[in-house]
Amino acid sequence: MSKIIYAPTIQLDTKLIQKIAPDYQVIVKPQEVSLERVEIVIDTGEIANQILKLENNQLKWIQALSAGVNYFDLARVAEQNIFLTNMKGLHAVTISEHVILTMMYANHQFSDAIRMQSQQIWDTDYFAPKTLENERVLIFGTGEIGGELARQLKSHGAIPIGINTTGYPVTHFEKVFAMQDYEFALKEKIYTIVNILPLTEATYHFYDASFFTHLKSNVKFINVGRGQSVDTEALITAIQQDLITFAALDVFETEPLAADSPLWKMENVLITPHMAGNIPNFSASVLDYFLPNLKHYLKFGMPDKNCVDPTKGY
Amino acid sequence: MSKIIYAPTIQLDTKLIQKIAPDYQVIVKPQEVSLERVEIVIDTGEIANQILKLENNQLKWIQALSAGVNYFDLARVAEQNIFLTNMKGLHAVTISEHVILTMMYANHQFSDAIRMQSQQIWDTDYFAPKTLENERVLIFGTGEIGGELARQLKSHGAIPIGINTTGYPVTHFEKVFAMQDYEFALKEKIYTIVNILPLTEATYHFYDASFFTHLKSNVKFINVGRGQSVDTEALITAIQQDLITFAALDVFETEPLAADSPLWKMENVLITPHMAGNIPNFSASVLDYFLPNLKHYLKFGMPDKNCVDPTKGY
Repeated sequence: MSKIIYAPTIQLDTKLIQKIAPDYQVIVKPQEVSLERVEIVIDTGEIANQILKLENNQLKWIQALSAGVNYFDLARVAEQNIFLTNMKGLHAVTISEHVILTMMYANHQFSDAIRMQSQQIWDTDYFAPKTLENERVLIFGTGEIGGELARQLKSHGAIPIGINTTGYPVTHFEKVFAMQDYEFALKEKIYTIVNILPLTEATYHFYDASFFTHLKSNVKFINVGRGQSVDTEALITAIQQDLITFAALDVFETEPLAADSPLWKMENVLITPHMAGNIPNFSASVLDYFLPNLKHYLKFGMPDKNCVDPTKGY
Repeated sequence: MSKIIYAPTIQLDTKLIQKIAPDYQVIVKPQEVSLERVEIVIDTGEIANQILKLENNQLKWIQALSAGVNYFDLARVAEQNIFLTNMKGLHAVTISEHVILTMMYANHQFSDAIRMQSQQIWDTDYFAPKTLENERVLIFGTGEIGGELARQLKSHGAIPIGINTTGYPVTHFEKVFAMQDYEFALKEKIYTIVNILPLTEATYHFYDASFFTHLKSNVKFINVGRGQSVDTEALITAIQQDLITFAALDVFETEPLAADSPLWKMENVLITPHMAGNIPNFSASVLDYFLPNLKHYLKFGMPDKNCVDPTKGY
């Protein structure tokens, strides 16, 4: 019985895969398959985790459909020595633009402009748009997305400051602090905080009440990383206390965001439904990542690019 | 009786002016003055035009409070040999950001995101944000604002194409066409058209029904120049015909925009009340432009920077 490459949640061009892997059966959404027979799964998390639980599974490789891999059962991935590859870098430009867009949206008072349009109010003098020039932006996460964001910000004259594990320097950042030293970064006036950290044990509820006490007033908080890095109650309190005067949230502790969350109706909170990194022609992009790795896997027994260490989570 | 420097519409730091021009009386808003005695006026148009009409006026220099000078009676300015200086360049960064913001706002479907937030709808798959990469943007006007906009667009990977009087090349633009050849520029696929032209006889109703027939479908139209460069009826028709699928309008044929204008309620039209170029600390910026010229005027009898030719209108 032939081995199976399975993409349960996405329609991919099976011919392109088949051409590289003629000995495999390639099965994509909406077709289903007996999970015990899957050797390679291209997935968001759920099906891969089901396979990992099967005692007699034949899984060897998981291709994640995102950069973050926290949706996968990483303990089992590590235990069973499964290769795990992600799509790191794919979302860098679009997520960076999303961050720039939300910052300009706040600085140029577009929320007020849109409300005034709906009420047919004309009030020129109300507006005092602030440019990004000299705006100090603290970016938690200096990987592919953080680096691209820093580049875009710098071209607008803003000052990107980074936070990563050890404070190692990264191109485009004015300065980089180690995670444990983030309080020092917050001692100088910071206008915007951006979270792009992967979700790990160390980053779970990193942005909590204690974190927010370090803020001087009038900060924009933008989360395009993972919702569970934030203690939502503490965030809401910080907004109510005007420590945070604008929040753009693309990710949440539970998704979809609960209908009764107070965030939906808070002034100065902009909610987007985990879409900042959506890619218009996503299926084609998946194959751009997957096919070169597939060739390598068939030749050498392992993928060689975008490999994730399941014990680290990135 | 001492000569007068008059700023009827803006509160300026009179001490800073007085220090340079001790022989003058400096009068600023909200004080009034006998207009016949004004030698230098710092104004938006109305008062300067009143002075120009007085037979026995002593006016020698008008400092405009904007880059565009179409609000001034340019025929009388020319006839009476009045110096006219503008604030060209001041608004370049903020207006360029405004344009980038409206483009990203459309490309990342923020209008839908905001509507969905108000209805508490969570629909990730609805969104396919488009980045600025490789977006061809046709910019009418390659002066200070157009040049800065082209620079910002290029840093996002977009392709700025310019239009100016003779097609002379300008830094940051991929290509520049002469005004009379604009149809050639429109022959290739253009995703966004930006108007930053000054209002002159040549640009009045330049964007008319005939202009819009050259558009291929799915164009964004952004006006941060002057409203009267656009035939509003023709623009509305072009939007209704889906030739223009998004319009961001900061300026209008009549301002404030009339309460019964259909533009207020059109889907895919974003209205801002002529604020794209507003400057937070405007009074200080005015003096940054005015004071060096005032020194030169007192020494040599004329201002030397940002001088406008009233017969050209820019």
